[in-house]
Amino acid sequence: MIVALAGGVGGAKLVDGLARVLSAQELTAVVNTGDDFEHLGLRVSPDLDTVMYTLAGRANTETGWGLAGETWRFMEALERLGGETWFRLGDQDLATHMCRTQMLAAGATLSEVAARLCGSLGVTQQIVPMSDGDVHTMIKTSEGELAFQEYFVRRHCAPVVQSVRYAGAADALPSEAFLEALGDARLQAVVLCPSNPWLSIEPMLTLPGVRERLRCIHVPVIAVSPIVGGQAIKGPAAKIMHELGRDVSALEVAKFYGDLLDGFVLDRIDAHLAVAVADLGMEPLVTDTVMTDGERRAHLARDVIRLATRLADGASA
Amino acid sequence: MIVALAGGVGGAKLVDGLARVLSAQELTAVVNTGDDFEHLGLRVSPDLDTVMYTLAGRANTETGWGLAGETWRFMEALERLGGETWFRLGDQDLATHMCRTQMLAAGATLSEVAARLCGSLGVTQQIVPMSDGDVHTMIKTSEGELAFQEYFVRRHCAPVVQSVRYAGAADALPSEAFLEALGDARLQAVVLCPSNPWLSIEPMLTLPGVRERLRCIHVPVIAVSPIVGGQAIKGPAAKIMHELGRDVSALEVAKFYGDLLDGFVLDRIDAHLAVAVADLGMEPLVTDTVMTDGERRAHLARDVIRLATRLADGASA
Repeated sequence: MIVALAGGVGGAKLVDGLARVLSAQELTAVVNTGDDFEHLGLRVSPDLDTVMYTLAGRANTETGWGLAGETWRFMEALERLGGETWFRLGDQDLATHMCRTQMLAAGATLSEVAARLCGSLGVTQQIVPMSDGDVHTMIKTSEGELAFQEYFVRRHCAPVVQSVRYAGAADALPSEAFLEALGDARLQAVVLCPSNPWLSIEPMLTLPGVRERLRCIHVPVIAVSPIVGGQAIKGPAAKIMHELGRDVSALEVAKFYGDLLDGFVLDRIDAHLAVAVADLGMEPLVTDTVMTDGERRAHLARDVIRLATRLADGASA
Repeated sequence: MIVALAGGVGGAKLVDGLARVLSAQELTAVVNTGDDFEHLGLRVSPDLDTVMYTLAGRANTETGWGLAGETWRFMEALERLGGETWFRLGDQDLATHMCRTQMLAAGATLSEVAARLCGSLGVTQQIVPMSDGDVHTMIKTSEGELAFQEYFVRRHCAPVVQSVRYAGAADALPSEAFLEALGDARLQAVVLCPSNPWLSIEPMLTLPGVRERLRCIHVPVIAVSPIVGGQAIKGPAAKIMHELGRDVSALEVAKFYGDLLDGFVLDRIDAHLAVAVADLGMEPLVTDTVMTDGERRAHLARDVIRLATRLADGASA
């Protein structure tokens, strides 16, 4: 059984790969909710939706967010009425936010909402929010501090990032399902998916007890680099690393996670970094990490599981 | 200047007729809000929207509610997620409810919301809610008391009506714009549009002071019968009249409004009732009242205004 920590697109792809090679009971995806926000009175959970839509086979692979075959009549009408249109909500996607908002208002936890939505869309794997509490990723930039979606969507990641904080994280407990998955007797590995380390993975590690728990967990913790050949496959990871004064490289990602990791997966293009990764005390694995189709997603998932098995065998040997 | 009290479809058609023959400054439509309700966390104002969409030239004339050329992707997605779909919200219509809900949550009155939405849709006439307070039309039926939309939409008006009450009406003040319009020095007539007397007009008359105000107002009060040839043009008016033990006839509508009225407009098919209407102390006007197109709407509006002028002249003579 694998616990995969995931953010948006890159994370969803590896979760999908794992879902292709594991049974539904063997996979729990724990998803970042630091990007969640309220918009037009609706609770929007972008990363949860991206993972859920991806596993449901309904993700819009062109945009990297939202649903395939989406329409925009609501947004057009909203624009006519002078409403806020900087955050695009598709006609079908809207139903997800509406259901979530209603269920939360009726007293359900975000975990319960996620389970119910997944069930409705036929997703059998467990997709759980990192926390049922409120965590808000805040970006300190050259133009002042911005809420995540203000920075990411409204400003298209243009402002220069100075630091990132996770408001509310100190008081937000990891979700029960997250903790249960980490304590599951069948657990074989924890995988940090190739999501943005600062925006997607770090919010989860910052939750009370999570980093400590992962540090002393008895199964391998493995990260897959979201940086390939000095570039991010998607999103602002490379730009943010540069702005934070770091080298834009897979090695830097490995350093960022540090002693949390037992294994680190690099793309072939970064094979030359394997030795330096090993010097950090991690087992490097060099393979194809760019998941351009379902087969490549499954292939990477198999490699990650193989590394986990090797590390577990090594530890027990 | 004319004040028109209107509910849904029939009311909206006469308001549209009046809008075609008067300047924008000469018409104030006061609209029933007893049908308003909260659905999926959204404040829905069916009658306000029907009047607004009609004057904006965007009404769906086939359904009698909602927008022309509407699409239903949101509802389809909501259905997949197991959400409530008995009340149909179109993709574009949804934007109206979303804007309204947001503005109300931000502290605006329903009157302010109506003005802003009308402005966005290019409607220049004043469309005002009967009240900025909460009034809920409740239908006592053979199956117990039902909230209006439960009765009207969810149950398709099937339960037998025993009585109707307007919860909250005693504590809801008429909107400022409603009172201002009634006190306007330019006021020439108050028109009760051919809307359902029990479901659309009575909620307005029940608001504190309104019936008294209309009874002693110095301009003619004129109603147009929504019952034509013993039938309702649209909606459950005839069924409800029957269930309430009344004759289903235009005369019965005239009796229902009673001494409030100075004039009453009947369809040609009901010409034989004119004498009985006159016996009630009202000036009858027999004309074509079925507003199947814009020209007929304008024609009826002109007739109503002519009757108002005649009544005013008679009173001052």
